[in-house]
Amino acid sequence: MDMSAARGVRERLVVIGGDAAGMSAASQARRLRDAGELEIVAFERGHFTSYSACGIPYWVGGDVAGPERLIARTAEEHRARDIDLRLRTEVTEIDVAGRRVRARDLDSGDESWTSYDKLVIATGARPIRPEMPGVDAPGVHGVQTLDDGQALLDTLARTGGRRAVVVGAGYIGVEMAEALINRGYEVTVVNRGSEPMSTLDPDMGRLVHEAMEGLGITMVDDTEVTKILTGDDGHVRAVATEDAEYPADVVVLGIGVRPETTLARAAGLPLGEHGGLLTDRAMRVRGHTDVYAGGDCVEVLDLVSGQERHVPLGTHANKHGQVIGTNVGGGYATFPGVVGTAVSKVCDLEIARTGLREKDARRAGLRYVTATIESTSRAGYYPGASPMTVKMLAELRTGRLLGVQIVGREGAGKRVDIAAVALTAGMTVEQMTSLDLGYAPPFSPVWDPVLVAARKASKAVHGVS
Amino acid sequence: MDMSAARGVRERLVVIGGDAAGMSAASQARRLRDAGELEIVAFERGHFTSYSACGIPYWVGGDVAGPERLIARTAEEHRARDIDLRLRTEVTEIDVAGRRVRARDLDSGDESWTSYDKLVIATGARPIRPEMPGVDAPGVHGVQTLDDGQALLDTLARTGGRRAVVVGAGYIGVEMAEALINRGYEVTVVNRGSEPMSTLDPDMGRLVHEAMEGLGITMVDDTEVTKILTGDDGHVRAVATEDAEYPADVVVLGIGVRPETTLARAAGLPLGEHGGLLTDRAMRVRGHTDVYAGGDCVEVLDLVSGQERHVPLGTHANKHGQVIGTNVGGGYATFPGVVGTAVSKVCDLEIARTGLREKDARRAGLRYVTATIESTSRAGYYPGASPMTVKMLAELRTGRLLGVQIVGREGAGKRVDIAAVALTAGMTVEQMTSLDLGYAPPFSPVWDPVLVAARKASKAVHGVS
Repeated sequence: MDMSAARGVRERLVVIGGDAAGMSAASQARRLRDAGELEIVAFERGHFTSYSACGIPYWVGGDVAGPERLIARTAEEHRARDIDLRLRTEVTEIDVAGRRVRARDLDSGDESWTSYDKLVIATGARPIRPEMPGVDAPGVHGVQTLDDGQALLDTLARTGGRRAVVVGAGYIGVEMAEALINRGYEVTVVNRGSEPMSTLDPDMGRLVHEAMEGLGITMVDDTEVTKILTGDDGHVRAVATEDAEYPADVVVLGIGVRPETTLARAAGLPLGEHGGLLTDRAMRVRGHTDVYAGGDCVEVLDLVSGQERHVPLGTHANKHGQVIGTNVGGGYATFPGVVGTAVSKVCDLEIARTGLREKDARRAGLRYVTATIESTSRAGYYPGASPMTVKMLAELRTGRLLGVQIVGREGAGKRVDIAAVALTAGMTVEQMTSLDLGYAPPFSPVWDPVLVAARKASKAVHGVS
Repeated sequence: MDMSAARGVRERLVVIGGDAAGMSAASQARRLRDAGELEIVAFERGHFTSYSACGIPYWVGGDVAGPERLIARTAEEHRARDIDLRLRTEVTEIDVAGRRVRARDLDSGDESWTSYDKLVIATGARPIRPEMPGVDAPGVHGVQTLDDGQALLDTLARTGGRRAVVVGAGYIGVEMAEALINRGYEVTVVNRGSEPMSTLDPDMGRLVHEAMEGLGITMVDDTEVTKILTGDDGHVRAVATEDAEYPADVVVLGIGVRPETTLARAAGLPLGEHGGLLTDRAMRVRGHTDVYAGGDCVEVLDLVSGQERHVPLGTHANKHGQVIGTNVGGGYATFPGVVGTAVSKVCDLEIARTGLREKDARRAGLRYVTATIESTSRAGYYPGASPMTVKMLAELRTGRLLGVQIVGREGAGKRVDIAAVALTAGMTVEQMTSLDLGYAPPFSPVWDPVLVAARKASKAVHGVS
């Protein structure tokens, strides 16, 4: 009797995409099933695996020494754990019926089919690149991959200019503004929204606008970039809008990303309205028992609105990978969904949000009240106490917490976690008023800012002032 | 017809104790009922009202300029809001049947009775003062009141010594150790427990011990102070234990506090096993519709163990006052209980805890697992990422979160709030593993340390490694 038969049939797991979701899935599956039981083949079209794309702005800004610091686990480390990782190899087709994928070696051009028993699609997201003249000119950079980061740093080193324009004022945009400030650039941020950080309500976005101007950044809101102008050398020289030109030695595009689901779409797999793959809580692609998907290429359930969202964020990708790997490995795990927590900073300005904005609440058909308060990060008398603004949304009548947005300085951002847990638990703002949060003068006023907001929101729910 | 009769009978609220709980109650009642409806008389035996006792160590340490910074609202401000505040007036008897209190003017010695319709007992706590020779010598200080703080500062200024001994290693003890370090003293902390911070499990207390020694503080654990030795001038010169003498120019007692319920006991009001008043969720003293109590003189329900605890903390006192004032004012509010959250620091060491320690879980008859992990405050590659240790307790089989303890540096302490909310919501550690917490490299690793602990605890619950 064949020994491998005695162990049961050896299965093959194929992973498409070697970053957070894909390699977390592979690693966790390997932890649970050894190479005798499960063969793992992972295809990655780039040069690197398992890196923190979220860290790129800090590498560009000089806070992180080099790209190798951003790599959580190298290709060699994965291979040492019996994962057959093939870099520079792009999957070009998924044949769901035939349970196989076709992959091309980007260096040799060779293509071949690899069959699978289980498939993980972790193809990530692709940056939105506006179609406009000059967008491909030297000096115009995205910051999605380590290669992008290196190209941008090369431009900064080569051109030695002093003026930078960032297009877009979401997380990537504001983080890149900080990076370029740290590199000594005069920074202009051009943003089509009415305020920066459209993940916040405009009233809170306004605070970000003001604080960024206070940091010396020129903020141009409500403005569409129409083209990118180049000099005689072909290199970028300015960003043009309907009304003005903004001189630029370097341009960074931070407009956002979309799910990279070209392969999945061609394979007939189910996509949602944001273009991401649709999965169940076990991260199985809907209707496909043996196909999993996770990370920036999927849509996730918003536990507050009950609607699907696209939330490209490393922390979710890692959780997805963990869940997929556990399920592939024979265990059972689920990813229930998100509440939409995000935190960012621009120099010493901290920006955080969770749950629904006003427009999300309206879109979900919810009636709500809002409460906005000002407080401080520490007891007012304690050194370093810095102001913060907290806005809270609660459902009318039930008082259920719907969302929180925070703009402040040190100590503001991570306070959003209090609201993230309360949202997950379905708490009312009234219940939140008696939360037993950590208090000591160096850490909080005697009423934590989140509690102050909850008190005000609770009064608004109950119609008392 | 008399106008006051037309408005109904004007009631009188009497408040005993002019600090956080008492004056919050008075202020909130006043907000809801004006002076035509409700007369408010507040008795305070000290010179000050509404001050932050928690801030005293930072005033002594020099981080806060003067005691006036610690006063949230002065006597004049209270009086301007039609609160008849009587300082230096001590209530000496509560006559519950007669609905009146007897008070003595501490300057004139005059005593008189004041009747009440509603009574608030907010008599606070008194420091434990060990009975031992020399404990009343000049140079031996408690730090419970602003007067205590001033007396200690006077001693520091007058004696100009360089050696300080702190007796006790709880919150007050460790905070005073920091204050004296900041004043340039060589500090020794003598502590009867096996480790400092007995509000933590000993394994986590050990980390505090090591970190405090790293700060240059001499830690003497497992040691009882037997007497305080004085010099020829009568001033303290050393602290003696069974085995040794520790020279001291100043001694600070930070042994803890007990509920100040002498009056309540004499009045026959119900006290719990920790000596604190027992109330319902509306903060009414049990069995007494018109008598409320709050702050450091009451016991509170521990929502995790279901047992009563004494938790003297300004944040609870303020919440109690708010609830009492709302109820006295004709509204309805409750204080459901605590989960036992506390946070503190010694220089850059942050210490936090919430929920049950191992011994609390055993006492409550719960079977539990523990998980301890090491992680960092920020992404490992981001500047300023500092190590932290998180210990988590979960109930065996159900996986319900029971408690969390954190020891680390900047960014460690307030992470305990995540667990505080999860405890309040009755979450399991498995549910916690998918919490959507704020992530960006300057704020957290891609798996927040609390999530890493939850994952490990969840595995322990399910018996997988």
